[in-house]
Amino acid sequence: MSADSSAVTAAVPGTPDPALLEDLVAANRILSDHGVLDAYGHISARDHGDRQHYWISRSMPPAQVTATDIIACDLDNNPVRAGETRLFFERVIHGEIYKARPDVMAVLHSHSPGLIPFCNSDTRLRPMIGSAAFLGEGAPVFDIRTVDDEGDLNICTLAQAKGLAQALGRHCLVLLRGHGAVAAGSSIRQIVRQAIIAESNARQQIQATLLGPVHFLTASELEFAKHHKPKDPDRAWQLWKQRAMGEQKA
Amino acid sequence: MSADSSAVTAAVPGTPDPALLEDLVAANRILSDHGVLDAYGHISARDHGDRQHYWISRSMPPAQVTATDIIACDLDNNPVRAGETRLFFERVIHGEIYKARPDVMAVLHSHSPGLIPFCNSDTRLRPMIGSAAFLGEGAPVFDIRTVDDEGDLNICTLAQAKGLAQALGRHCLVLLRGHGAVAAGSSIRQIVRQAIIAESNARQQIQATLLGPVHFLTASELEFAKHHKPKDPDRAWQLWKQRAMGEQKA
Amino acid sequence: MSADSSAVTAAVPGTPDPALLEDLVAANRILSDHGVLDAYGHISARDHGDRQHYWISRSMPPAQVTATDIIACDLDNNPVRAGETRLFFERVIHGEIYKARPDVMAVLHSHSPGLIPFCNSDTRLRPMIGSAAFLGEGAPVFDIRTVDDEGDLNICTLAQAKGLAQALGRHCLVLLRGHGAVAAGSSIRQIVRQAIIAESNARQQIQATLLGPVHFLTASELEFAKHHKPKDPDRAWQLWKQRAMGEQKA
Amino acid sequence: MSADSSAVTAAVPGTPDPALLEDLVAANRILSDHGVLDAYGHISARDHGDRQHYWISRSMPPAQVTATDIIACDLDNNPVRAGETRLFFERVIHGEIYKARPDVMAVLHSHSPGLIPFCNSDTRLRPMIGSAAFLGEGAPVFDIRTVDDEGDLNICTLAQAKGLAQALGRHCLVLLRGHGAVAAGSSIRQIVRQAIIAESNARQQIQATLLGPVHFLTASELEFAKHHKPKDPDRAWQLWKQRAMGEQKA
Repeated sequence: MSADSSAVTAAVPGTPDPALLEDLVAANRILSDHGVLDAYGHISARDHGDRQHYWISRSMPPAQVTATDIIACDLDNNPVRAGETRLFFERVIHGEIYKARPDVMAVLHSHSPGLIPFCNSDTRLRPMIGSAAFLGEGAPVFDIRTVDDEGDLNICTLAQAKGLAQALGRHCLVLLRGHGAVAAGSSIRQIVRQAIIAESNARQQIQATLLGPVHFLTASELEFAKHHKPKDPDRAWQLWKQRAMGEQKA
Repeated sequence: MSADSSAVTAAVPGTPDPALLEDLVAANRILSDHGVLDAYGHISARDHGDRQHYWISRSMPPAQVTATDIIACDLDNNPVRAGETRLFFERVIHGEIYKARPDVMAVLHSHSPGLIPFCNSDTRLRPMIGSAAFLGEGAPVFDIRTVDDEGDLNICTLAQAKGLAQALGRHCLVLLRGHGAVAAGSSIRQIVRQAIIAESNARQQIQATLLGPVHFLTASELEFAKHHKPKDPDRAWQLWKQRAMGEQKA
Repeated sequence: MSADSSAVTAAVPGTPDPALLEDLVAANRILSDHGVLDAYGHISARDHGDRQHYWISRSMPPAQVTATDIIACDLDNNPVRAGETRLFFERVIHGEIYKARPDVMAVLHSHSPGLIPFCNSDTRLRPMIGSAAFLGEGAPVFDIRTVDDEGDLNICTLAQAKGLAQALGRHCLVLLRGHGAVAAGSSIRQIVRQAIIAESNARQQIQATLLGPVHFLTASELEFAKHHKPKDPDRAWQLWKQRAMGEQKA
Repeated sequence: MSADSSAVTAAVPGTPDPALLEDLVAANRILSDHGVLDAYGHISARDHGDRQHYWISRSMPPAQVTATDIIACDLDNNPVRAGETRLFFERVIHGEIYKARPDVMAVLHSHSPGLIPFCNSDTRLRPMIGSAAFLGEGAPVFDIRTVDDEGDLNICTLAQAKGLAQALGRHCLVLLRGHGAVAAGSSIRQIVRQAIIAESNARQQIQATLLGPVHFLTASELEFAKHHKPKDPDRAWQLWKQRAMGEQKA
């Protein structure tokens, strides 16, 4: 565990990409606006040029993040700039997933309220609609006891983060028993979209169980989704961003 | 499937009816305000004078539609004006329903969140209250696999849209497995009203199942509703419009 | 049924009580603000001096009611002032309940969304907490088929309203199968308070059924409530009024 | 029972701590903002210097409390200042818990809506996530009938409050059958945090029961939480305070 006080300063990465920073700020606000994040949770993006570094806000409420609050860390989760002390304890999640998944460009840790019932159940979160196909045959659940059973369920050590990355495997989303969720994807916008869809899918799946057996996406529908991108995802991003940033100004 | 890039320009219809355009803008806003539409989904209205054309917004978030965003298409879903490229992929739904149902003057495709549980269940959405009598003995569910099983569940081909129109039959609402809903009616205001009622009816029906057997409308009550219009439906329209357009200004 | 067009003008009652009008306006706004009323539904108050008349708004959305929209009707539901044409079809409910229940000073008809599941179920709405003791052993359900089976479930005829008043009996609340609810009480403020409590009680009772057998108030607790007034009910009224009227101004 | 009219004036405590008053005002606003408190309920804090007194608002809606509305009471619930008449009837809860629990520095009585289903059920409210570990093996339920069965379920007498304090025991939260909840903790900020977590935990536990057997925190996780403080709880407090106080200004 890289504790805050003992954080080593990492090698300096290239200049931050303004577009990446803008998306990361918007992501924090959008996810707060949709109730996926409240006072806690964090989203990061891997640097496009220097794949050994990622960008993440200092430890603060996501709803209040601005571009100047975003800092660079190496994949051992050490901040690049000396003197950074307001760091998320659980940032170890980000580094370990970027190491284990070269395809992953963005990582989100949330306590998305609709997902919690599935974190503590043997019933898998499964896709109700086409846009939730990324849930596949069901989101896996990581039980921290498979690593150790002596903490507060937060992911604070390398061993815990490695166990989590292993449970994530090739999935887009892993649920954490008694805790929350971690999403990994190919872009900031993709994981924001998937986080909002996962939250509503969870609520709809719970309601559907009251009506009898639930028909989830078929194997061929899941297979199709692996090879095709969603149509016009940017439309939602722009709408959500406008709402979230507008509210912030008011 | 008439893809966006290959859209053929249709014959020019008469001048747009300002009242129809105003209602169509208000409908987009009201449905967004009620959560029936989010970033996706679309509502159209058949031209009153030229029954071979319908009006629909360009591909954009319904909450942001203004009168200048609304364009005319023929029943093969080709835009009347040359150069239109921002078109909904699924507009094929609209043309096929207008062809199959001469009585229909407005069509709505949504992902109304409360309806999704019924899209993936063998339990039918049925009317809880008199104003939901348009649901009849239960909304049918269209399974796209009855047409083909190789897409993303969106209705993008003529064959899929024809299958959907067939499943709709003489109903006012058809649910789409793993996807959403399509409503058809005699006016913009009617399908907006019915969309809002369907959403609340769905939530109430799910809650009612927790209390034991649910008593739905009787056969004679359904029969009565077929022959009588609702009392003073415009009162709700005006209230919803005022709220939705006011919020937009703010 | 006293249809709108054939409304007879009733004898003129005394000058309206400004305090009663102010409470009636506030009641319309508070109930809209809490989602008990949407575009439809109505609340009336019996005149304090002239018990053969009651005050009610013209047919309009409750959220928009002002003092000048409130008119007087006699207990046969005829407006006092000549030329009134915007009248609620279902105002017959009010007259019949005032006739049947001399103790009743205010009547509310709503489609309170949380109550609908109980309207269509054999499970009774019962009190979860002390302030809901007015629900007694459970709210009765009026089935309009006990009168006739040929309408749209609205209460439009004297026979239907008499049947409803009979089903209400000595209760504070009666549910209407496939329709909504009617509350009767000793003051405007009391029925507003009870309407808001009934709505939340309904939601809580449904949730409680998921946890196993529900423990409702005991017989002695119900008996106590019959003889004691709630403590400081005006505190909630003033808070709700301030919020509802403030929002209206903004 | 110390009735309002017969309130004895207690010995004067030291000057109020401005920081405590500021937190108590913020707590009232935050809990209103989160729907834990509506027009009723109250939160108090024990004086840091004079442990025989506590601070609480006059009887008023929590959403409207300012620093000048907060008064001191002794542990027999008598106001320090002469002439105070707007006092909560149920303030006896506060005095008895401060007497029984020397470790307790803040007490909250609410009717938190999500908790009510658990008040009337044999199913215990249990922790879904690490931050809810304070719920332990499940919140106890106090049944006022163990003291007497002749009132309105409010806690108005010393005997009732003593019974409640006994049911609370060493717990952080006790539910009251047919009524609400009482929380006790080491600081204002802690009980506010725990009240908000308890409310969301209740909703999540009910949803989880729909998915099958629920996996709650393990015995070792509960044990760990007894000996470790939550990480950075002040982040949420500051965010919630900013939102709640900002809304108040607007």
